[in-house]
Amino acid sequence: MAIHDDRPAGDPLAELKTANDQRILLLVMDGLGGLPREPGGPTELEAARTPNLDALAAGAECGLHVPIDYGIAPGSAPGHLALFGYDPLQYPIGRGIVAALGIGHPIRGGDVAARLNFATRDDTGLITDRRAGRIPTELCTRLAALLDGIELPGVEVAVRPVRDYRAVVVLHGAGLSDRVSDTDPARTGVAALPPRALAPEAEHTAQVAAAFVVRARELLADEAPANEVLLRGFAQLPRIPSLTDRFGLSPVALAVYPDYKGVSRLVGMEVVEGLADLDAQSRALAAAWPGHDYFFVHHKYTDSAGEDGDFDAKVAEVEKVDRALPGLLAGEPDVVIVTGDHSTPSVARSHTAHPVPFLVHGAAVRPDAVRQFGERECAAGAWGVVPGRALMAIALGHAGKVARFGA
Amino acid sequence: MAIHDDRPAGDPLAELKTANDQRILLLVMDGLGGLPREPGGPTELEAARTPNLDALAAGAECGLHVPIDYGIAPGSAPGHLALFGYDPLQYPIGRGIVAALGIGHPIRGGDVAARLNFATRDDTGLITDRRAGRIPTELCTRLAALLDGIELPGVEVAVRPVRDYRAVVVLHGAGLSDRVSDTDPARTGVAALPPRALAPEAEHTAQVAAAFVVRARELLADEAPANEVLLRGFAQLPRIPSLTDRFGLSPVALAVYPDYKGVSRLVGMEVVEGLADLDAQSRALAAAWPGHDYFFVHHKYTDSAGEDGDFDAKVAEVEKVDRALPGLLAGEPDVVIVTGDHSTPSVARSHTAHPVPFLVHGAAVRPDAVRQFGERECAAGAWGVVPGRALMAIALGHAGKVARFGA
Repeated sequence: MAIHDDRPAGDPLAELKTANDQRILLLVMDGLGGLPREPGGPTELEAARTPNLDALAAGAECGLHVPIDYGIAPGSAPGHLALFGYDPLQYPIGRGIVAALGIGHPIRGGDVAARLNFATRDDTGLITDRRAGRIPTELCTRLAALLDGIELPGVEVAVRPVRDYRAVVVLHGAGLSDRVSDTDPARTGVAALPPRALAPEAEHTAQVAAAFVVRARELLADEAPANEVLLRGFAQLPRIPSLTDRFGLSPVALAVYPDYKGVSRLVGMEVVEGLADLDAQSRALAAAWPGHDYFFVHHKYTDSAGEDGDFDAKVAEVEKVDRALPGLLAGEPDVVIVTGDHSTPSVARSHTAHPVPFLVHGAAVRPDAVRQFGERECAAGAWGVVPGRALMAIALGHAGKVARFGA
Repeated sequence: MAIHDDRPAGDPLAELKTANDQRILLLVMDGLGGLPREPGGPTELEAARTPNLDALAAGAECGLHVPIDYGIAPGSAPGHLALFGYDPLQYPIGRGIVAALGIGHPIRGGDVAARLNFATRDDTGLITDRRAGRIPTELCTRLAALLDGIELPGVEVAVRPVRDYRAVVVLHGAGLSDRVSDTDPARTGVAALPPRALAPEAEHTAQVAAAFVVRARELLADEAPANEVLLRGFAQLPRIPSLTDRFGLSPVALAVYPDYKGVSRLVGMEVVEGLADLDAQSRALAAAWPGHDYFFVHHKYTDSAGEDGDFDAKVAEVEKVDRALPGLLAGEPDVVIVTGDHSTPSVARSHTAHPVPFLVHGAAVRPDAVRQFGERECAAGAWGVVPGRALMAIALGHAGKVARFGA
């Protein structure tokens, strides 16, 4: 049985949604779930000194969640969709969309977005560097502006810089499809691939993409090492009902990294820009307090440390969040969820499918025996193992935002 | 999102049903799940002295169940549907149907039932009391008989008293639909609403309802304070396969309150009438023993005490059931389930979404470490958190009423 599923009955939580002034705070430590460094040892979270998280856990319902499904390591976007109460398998999100939303570029239904990487090609057309020597963002910005002017029949082209050699291209027009193959060959010494239609309805888009690449090469001819473009992750906006439509929430995202702002916008969250660290996030949380009832605070560096294979650095990032916790809770949210969007054990150096520890705190919870916020204690918590998207439902229930079902 | 899912495979338990003489007893303490009165304290069930339930739990498999879905507080009818092995989201039950079945009024497929509340209107037609001064049941009975005679073209009208100012109207005829809006404005100082069709196929029914209201006002003209009727919860019988069809059971319900008899009839249970208390239920259980293999015993007052916010009264009701347990088990049922249909913590004074403790006892169970029947011990029980409807499946399995699936 899939750990979660789509009901014939549709969306019961949406049908039962009940607005009130209760506030829900979701605190995400990216890639929180971990593994012991040595057999029998503690995980990163278990090793961390977390007096504030432990105190919260002592009055909370704890458990482990599976973001996507058993055995599946989540990407960051689907992992967060689950935490926001959606079934990630129902709403696949393409890389191009995440990139465009991440930089705040407005995407309309039907638009096709793709990641654009500046690269280097030699005189014979072979790729010699897929990252154009990692050109600086300033140069990326100038070159993106150059390509932004490209005119193609019946299609508006927008090219925007992201960071370093990475940009995004967005096509706007009628009859577009995202069923187009990547042009990035994923290795050097070969030519870029032609964009191919992966479905009949994508022939037009594939031709548009091919014409764009030809024109881009002309404009970049004298810009070596950035004289080539590689396109990947063609994607269109998935139709996702917003958190307001589904749950009646007024949500706001307090994230530092573009991708998490992107997935937040995807579900209709207001996004606060220009946040550099937990202090700024904490201040922005206080400022957003009056006008919202759902607050998403995201901390990236637990995941970064895990990806780097740095056990101690991940421990330090967890402790940093623990020290920031009192400030984040200063407004006294009615329901608090603390968890991760997936596991990134430092011994694995990557996202894994391991269940992710969580706690749900609030006046209406039924506290369990968990006294320390960690993987093994949470496994013995009140909830056991639940689907990631159950956390939103549980929080909404505790916040009184779900009407009774039936007489 | 669902804690349980509906399989494309259909209804495996029905396909595998195997009749035998093993008996299953389901003992429901309504609204059993609770919360501590003060932080760190016991719940009502944990505070109750329950030597008999604890002894049963010591040899049982325990856990918590979610009747409807994460975060959703169950109504009594859907809560019981789950305990009977059905997905409540798949079989929504309208208020009118629950009321009609509750008083034992025969409902045929296609009939439309609605709650009818006697109310008071002033000379200008505005509602001044939505409950007609809570007229006594005797008066309600006389007035219902008055309206019961209403004749409308092509439709049989039945009006039956329920209790106090509450009655039920049942329409029988061709081409009826329950997609009709309530006439109860839900507040005073305004006129009753006209019944509106919520779907094209309901136009006829809306007209019938409107004609009924006009005629009812004429008949009640001199009956102030009960000179108005308010209709709500138009509903038709959901097509629910019976416990006999699905599981091959010969079920009997031993309940005191009308609503629980109603939902029992909905799944094809035989219903014993005229039961006043646990003693009578215990005697009726013994009398029904020879002819049945599934016994549903319902105790209402745990929920009532929770709704009243009376922690001690709920504790006392649990202890009352504990004292009655030996008598209820005198026939030595092969499988016993003890649980609730939802949580009604006295601190909440209402149904909540909190998981509900359960135990499953029988010769074939694999006992866990639970020694005291309570929320937190059950959270650490053999089953963890399961969908409500899993309890029936687990009981059928232990009773040997499910054939092996596959070679």
